Amino acid sequence: MFLDDNYLLNNDVAKNLYFNYVKELPIFDYHCHVSPKEIFEDKPFDNYSEISLSGDHYKWRLLRNDGVPENEITGDASPYSKFYSFCRLMPKLIGNPIYVWTHLELRRYFGYEKPLSEATADEAWDAVNSAIRGNKMSPRYFIDASNVSFIGTTDDPCDDLSWHEKLAEDQSFGTTVAPSFRPDKAINVRMPGYAQYIANLGKVCGRGIISLDDLKNALIDRIKLFKAKGMVASDHGLYYCMEKPSENYDLNAVFQKALSGEIPTAAEFDAFQFEMLLFLAAEYRKNDIVMQIHYGAGRNLNSRSFDALGPDTGFDTINPKASQNGLGDFLDALEKNDCLPKTVIYSLDPNDNQMIDSVIGAFQCGGIRGKIQHGAAWWFNDTRQGIISHLHSLSELYVLGNFIGMLTDSRSFLSYVRHDYFRRILCNYLSDVVNEGSYPLDYDALGKIAADISYYNAREYFGF
Amino acid sequence: MFLDDNYLLNNDVAKNLYFNYVKELPIFDYHCHVSPKEIFEDKPFDNYSEISLSGDHYKWRLLRNDGVPENEITGDASPYSKFYSFCRLMPKLIGNPIYVWTHLELRRYFGYEKPLSEATADEAWDAVNSAIRGNKMSPRYFIDASNVSFIGTTDDPCDDLSWHEKLAEDQSFGTTVAPSFRPDKAINVRMPGYAQYIANLGKVCGRGIISLDDLKNALIDRIKLFKAKGMVASDHGLYYCMEKPSENYDLNAVFQKALSGEIPTAAEFDAFQFEMLLFLAAEYRKNDIVMQIHYGAGRNLNSRSFDALGPDTGFDTINPKASQNGLGDFLDALEKNDCLPKTVIYSLDPNDNQMIDSVIGAFQCGGIRGKIQHGAAWWFNDTRQGIISHLHSLSELYVLGNFIGMLTDSRSFLSYVRHDYFRRILCNYLSDVVNEGSYPLDYDALGKIAADISYYNAREYFGF
Amino acid sequence: MFLDDNYLLNNDVAKNLYFNYVKELPIFDYHCHVSPKEIFEDKPFDNYSEISLSGDHYKWRLLRNDGVPENEITGDASPYSKFYSFCRLMPKLIGNPIYVWTHLELRRYFGYEKPLSEATADEAWDAVNSAIRGNKMSPRYFIDASNVSFIGTTDDPCDDLSWHEKLAEDQSFGTTVAPSFRPDKAINVRMPGYAQYIANLGKVCGRGIISLDDLKNALIDRIKLFKAKGMVASDHGLYYCMEKPSENYDLNAVFQKALSGEIPTAAEFDAFQFEMLLFLAAEYRKNDIVMQIHYGAGRNLNSRSFDALGPDTGFDTINPKASQNGLGDFLDALEKNDCLPKTVIYSLDPNDNQMIDSVIGAFQCGGIRGKIQHGAAWWFNDTRQGIISHLHSLSELYVLGNFIGMLTDSRSFLSYVRHDYFRRILCNYLSDVVNEGSYPLDYDALGKIAADISYYNAREYFGF
Repeated sequence: MFLDDNYLLNNDVAKNLYFNYVKELPIFDYHCHVSPKEIFEDKPFDNYSEISLSGDHYKWRLLRNDGVPENEITGDASPYSKFYSFCRLMPKLIGNPIYVWTHLELRRYFGYEKPLSEATADEAWDAVNSAIRGNKMSPRYFIDASNVSFIGTTDDPCDDLSWHEKLAEDQSFGTTVAPSFRPDKAINVRMPGYAQYIANLGKVCGRGIISLDDLKNALIDRIKLFKAKGMVASDHGLYYCMEKPSENYDLNAVFQKALSGEIPTAAEFDAFQFEMLLFLAAEYRKNDIVMQIHYGAGRNLNSRSFDALGPDTGFDTINPKASQNGLGDFLDALEKNDCLPKTVIYSLDPNDNQMIDSVIGAFQCGGIRGKIQHGAAWWFNDTRQGIISHLHSLSELYVLGNFIGMLTDSRSFLSYVRHDYFRRILCNYLSDVVNEGSYPLDYDALGKIAADISYYNAREYFGF
Repeated sequence: MFLDDNYLLNNDVAKNLYFNYVKELPIFDYHCHVSPKEIFEDKPFDNYSEISLSGDHYKWRLLRNDGVPENEITGDASPYSKFYSFCRLMPKLIGNPIYVWTHLELRRYFGYEKPLSEATADEAWDAVNSAIRGNKMSPRYFIDASNVSFIGTTDDPCDDLSWHEKLAEDQSFGTTVAPSFRPDKAINVRMPGYAQYIANLGKVCGRGIISLDDLKNALIDRIKLFKAKGMVASDHGLYYCMEKPSENYDLNAVFQKALSGEIPTAAEFDAFQFEMLLFLAAEYRKNDIVMQIHYGAGRNLNSRSFDALGPDTGFDTINPKASQNGLGDFLDALEKNDCLPKTVIYSLDPNDNQMIDSVIGAFQCGGIRGKIQHGAAWWFNDTRQGIISHLHSLSELYVLGNFIGMLTDSRSFLSYVRHDYFRRILCNYLSDVVNEGSYPLDYDALGKIAADISYYNAREYFGF
Repeated sequence: MFLDDNYLLNNDVAKNLYFNYVKELPIFDYHCHVSPKEIFEDKPFDNYSEISLSGDHYKWRLLRNDGVPENEITGDASPYSKFYSFCRLMPKLIGNPIYVWTHLELRRYFGYEKPLSEATADEAWDAVNSAIRGNKMSPRYFIDASNVSFIGTTDDPCDDLSWHEKLAEDQSFGTTVAPSFRPDKAINVRMPGYAQYIANLGKVCGRGIISLDDLKNALIDRIKLFKAKGMVASDHGLYYCMEKPSENYDLNAVFQKALSGEIPTAAEFDAFQFEMLLFLAAEYRKNDIVMQIHYGAGRNLNSRSFDALGPDTGFDTINPKASQNGLGDFLDALEKNDCLPKTVIYSLDPNDNQMIDSVIGAFQCGGIRGKIQHGAAWWFNDTRQGIISHLHSLSELYVLGNFIGMLTDSRSFLSYVRHDYFRRILCNYLSDVVNEGSYPLDYDALGKIAADISYYNAREYFGF
């Protein structure tokens, strides 16, 4: 029962689709946060805590919920001690995706099948670590074992992409690792340290950046470089989709203000972001680059913990104010001038599914199949319910067969099991539609939909 | 399996309710957008594309999503060519209501049972068109075949209702076709061409409209005329429910501004709308007319396509800013003066279900059963999931047995199958409550609920 | 079938968990609105309408929906006549929690098993009333019959807690009845009659309250008294969580304004509330008192009915404007100064589940298990769907095993059946996760989760 071969496949149609059409397909992981340096260096891991607990702020939140002291989470407690706290937490996590993913990973990569708990902590620690050392498990070990054909990393414009270059030159490694352009810092005029960031950007571009035009030219330079190094997508993280400014701002003046260390107003920030996103989107369109927009994350909400631990340590939230009219304003401003690129929209708010599908449905133009996508259920929504709600909305308001499917959005080399998790949910979802009588039992059609969403649509969408 | 007789009826209770209590009931379609002129003239259709694709912007959106060029959608491509593009799209539409509705229509009206796809396009085209021509299928053909007892059209105050008059005089046609009063344009002071609209309204009323009082009197005139021609309901389409204005506005001055071609501010618009809706609601109450409010649609969001194709061509969306306090403000302002009419509220935002049911629950007064209604799941929500969510909210927060049920809200004469779709979902929903143990298996009570919601409640509510 | 022993328990795992692990556990009802006076006086009831209809505004709303005249609801119609109207309504309430709760109560406490309807009204009236009189049913009768170990009432700071005192002294009564501190009126500077309230508070404290510092000191006095009388929790009812004020206000000046009978602005109100909530939260932390926040209720929306009938008569709603950033601002302002108490957050908006779970996940600190809780599905959400949605969100974003579970939030002594209702839904929910393959079939682990959520977690959380 527990995570067996037929996990989440509740009937014969689902099983047939999964086993015969999608199980063996490669993984096209078009958006994630793994490190190209780690992939290139490919150092073997030492123990399970290093692989699984050292960077995973999803787990840190849950450990804090369980009353575990910070020292046992992000502090200098021993790797085993951290693992033991995690094992104590696990039985309470019924229904949590961390529970399922962890045990899928243990089975898939380490051959360990017992549920984690205080009782199994010692045994599991030994078994898994001996698998890690016995197989010299390293980043590429997990990538190869997972049949990953493409990895889209997330990279700052200041990055020199040297690790991507080395990876491209390495004939021994078959997976394509492409950079993605994420210029959040370059356009965040309210960010502490913005002037310094811009100075650094100028340095890597070999040009002084003293005006807004300079900034735009610097970003064009970097887009060209990224494109030359294999980029097929960009990415933007926004608190919310800002609306079209209701008045005109002198944006160069806003930029000067930010460079001088003064903090622009919220309205200036919005106007600056809106304009820069339009500018960048037009560049992406010219260069045939997909634009990804992740909006709706409230970042670093707990300022005390942020001061102590920094960003990406488990203090982010769903931003309840993100759902504004900005998404439509933005797409319209681009489409009006015929410079809307292929775009993938992700919201962190689970209430936005239908709204997004209705809005992007108004911008599917230009003869490109699935041009504007509603990206896979993200972060707090990357759960069984979240995935099903997303599929429901896509099937009812979008053309489900044109969806580009799953991604990990993860820092972990174990997270590829989430593609398997998604594929099972997808096949079961399709089978439910058939069994309810709303679609004929036609395996050619059903298998094509399942395989397209699991792999082929993403490959085509990103130009391969 | 696929769309068979027991479609969506998952157990014996559901089947019993559907087949013995609701299947044969007439259809009371209290809100739609079919043309009374087309019903009166009753011209036979030429081909399936004319009936099914020529006016249906739900399908146009999906064809654009599939990369079909605009010429094959709204352009001058041949009817067959448009149908062929639609057939190519169909297999990808798993889980979409268009997939289900289209095949229900093909079975019900044309006797064609194979799923549409590239492979069946030719055969289906021939079979369906020969049914159309062989049976001289026309608007009344579909109305008769669907057992429709009442049709509530949607009509502008400037309309002379001559087609309704002719239909009323036609003894050969048994269905009641009643106008509904939809004065959106008459009170939209920010609409381009507003002054011209008002001039025209003055002309049809035979009175000059130069003040706000004149406008109110003109609208009273038209309400009287509409009522004399059989009107039982009005309808209003709002982006959102505006809140009670926080300050006083000289609304006649706002009206003059609009007449002079100047565009009132957003705040003036809101104050004007709020006041005019109160005025109209009080008139509806006096005349025993039901007030319908459809809010939450973002219209014509894609301005480039709107410029090219005009309104109602597939570029509308769920307005994410619609959920404000205005609904309660509005109902309270009416109830305070005891002039709240029977009212039906529809929101396009699926997140609003519980909020609406809680708000209208605070205004069920005056000894009228189900006086304030939460209208059937609308447009983007008119899906299996959307209907079930709506029924859940109604049953948990409202009195489900007092619900007035389904309507098509459609421009198509084929759309009556949606009543059948709804009735199946309803019967299955009721059976689920019984099978879960939350309601006794009492067919008298259950059958009465099912039949009331399918037909009798609406008939009573609208005064028949 | 209907409400039988296995009600809502759909498989053997669910049944095993319910019957062997939670059915017999005591009830820890940590938040409700029953009257300590009524418990102490313990007067036998006279008839079923007195127990079930005389104070229940949930039912009044539904009766109004059914067209019942106000006289038959809150007026002076006879108890039987009110009961008869209720019986006529009942069959239409399919899927409504009132339908289920009422019949659970009839079975559990009165041994009456037939569904209420016009047909059974007479018989039911006689049978239930003779049970009431035969057993001399009184408040303590129902409390004892329900195995309630703890009752947390809701009390104004002006209350002298004399009834709690008497109850504590009564050795014959085993249930702990503790006051909870609900100072809504003391900090609502826009409330009509605020100055008078403050004067009264001063009187009960024996100190003049003429400055904001006086008010704070008075509240500290009352917290001390409440704590001495057994308080373990406070409670706050907010329309919405106000955001951190963007500017500084002279809050003593706002207080003076309110005392003088002037109404502070909305912005002043927000700033005052925000500051006073911070102040009180810090006091709760010092005194090891749990802070409960109920937000998102729109109160008394129907002003005509409010004028006629007063508060808590069925005219409240879900406030659609409640979801703001204030929740995070508030928790952050507390945590920044290390004065965040144990806190339980409840929202009336069912769309807030995931947002709340993500926000409180950023504030689980300090080594306390489940320190910040997302309180049980509340009021309009206290339905089967609402409870399941809440459990889904908790299990996917929180640590479900750390949840403190159900409460009645009720004025009725019959409402303890809702704990049974919740426990059944919980056990079935857990069994679904197991049967889907996402958790092993380990009764020790599952039974512990079920029992912890049903009873033990709350007991520990509130310090017993």
